[in-house]
Amino acid sequence: MKLVIGNKAYSSWSFRPWILMTVLGIPFEEELVPLYREGSAEAIRRVSPGGKVPALIDGDVVVWESLAIIEYLADRFPGRGIWPAETAARAHARALSTEMHAGFQALRNRCPMNVRRAPKAVALGPEVEANVARIVSGWAEARERFGSGGPFLYGAFSAADAMYAPVVSRFHAYAVPVPQSARAYMDAVMALPAWSAWVAAGEAEPWHLADSDDVT
Amino acid sequence: MKLVIGNKAYSSWSFRPWILMTVLGIPFEEELVPLYREGSAEAIRRVSPGGKVPALIDGDVVVWESLAIIEYLADRFPGRGIWPAETAARAHARALSTEMHAGFQALRNRCPMNVRRAPKAVALGPEVEANVARIVSGWAEARERFGSGGPFLYGAFSAADAMYAPVVSRFHAYAVPVPQSARAYMDAVMALPAWSAWVAAGEAEPWHLADSDDVT
Repeated sequence: MKLVIGNKAYSSWSFRPWILMTVLGIPFEEELVPLYREGSAEAIRRVSPGGKVPALIDGDVVVWESLAIIEYLADRFPGRGIWPAETAARAHARALSTEMHAGFQALRNRCPMNVRRAPKAVALGPEVEANVARIVSGWAEARERFGSGGPFLYGAFSAADAMYAPVVSRFHAYAVPVPQSARAYMDAVMALPAWSAWVAAGEAEPWHLADSDDVT
Repeated sequence: MKLVIGNKAYSSWSFRPWILMTVLGIPFEEELVPLYREGSAEAIRRVSPGGKVPALIDGDVVVWESLAIIEYLADRFPGRGIWPAETAARAHARALSTEMHAGFQALRNRCPMNVRRAPKAVALGPEVEANVARIVSGWAEARERFGSGGPFLYGAFSAADAMYAPVVSRFHAYAVPVPQSARAYMDAVMALPAWSAWVAAGEAEPWHLADSDDVT
């Protein structure tokens, strides 16, 4: 099984299936296609027929889109706890994950994922602040109702944590003010060996945005 | 099981689970909460704790977000063919559906769903045209690779058709130029009794946008 991803420094959508498979111990080969360079589109098309990353290639099956990859893995590895086992928790986790998949555009535009960035606050504005409030409230609800078995949204690490891993990175890198409970959740995610491995690889990548392109 | 939806005339996200459950014969009660009116937010919060529509309420379980509702139903009714049965087709259907869930913003902004609108073209512009080209190409790929068993994307009507039903409505209402194969697919969707029932209900709703708010 091969996971085709973009740069670790910036490709938030690639981070999701990568951290899920890594934390849950699902073996995969990885192929990294640098983005934002001349020839990137052709390079991606050679390994991912749809021209998109991330893409999972499993024999004849090609799945693109982070959330579809996650559902594919949940079908293929039913015992791995990709989604919470209990019905209400699983339904909640999927709703929170699809909400992330389709939304929070203001946050994503204002605070692009950049694992190289030293944490530094930026002015957020009301739309980003509304996104942050909704995310923090969704996290708190998951933790309160379903999180008693561990430090993650639904106790054990699941697809929902993978879907929000780039948000954790953004909140950290842009020093977004969050309540203590949200910070504790972020700290649990950032303490994962898979987190450190991704960030270290992103920091070591030879291609990167100019410092002048960073968000201020 | 109760499905809370917004106006049938305009609520594209509500249309998705509604048409899926209706076509596949999954019984549900329906509660319609008119949108864009004073008190709408409070009315929604009374029936949908997250303050969002569509929402599915099944005993103690509340699921919001159209795609999460669909995955919940796929878990709960495994024999109904909500997703295609074959692995590669199911993976493709999920990828196409998540692509819709997260994308095509230009099309959605320019051509809001409005089942009352008499078909009439509008200028699209390059971003919307790129969305249309990608959608038409995804449909063609699904039909060619997996659609031999019927007129829908994966043969029989599935969640992917439900996810794209609002797009069919937009393409029709804004007279978007599409190839003949895409038009044939749209015609198959629009020939469903569930389609006619939704559109008729949308046309009969007492609340509506002023004609002057229509897109030109």
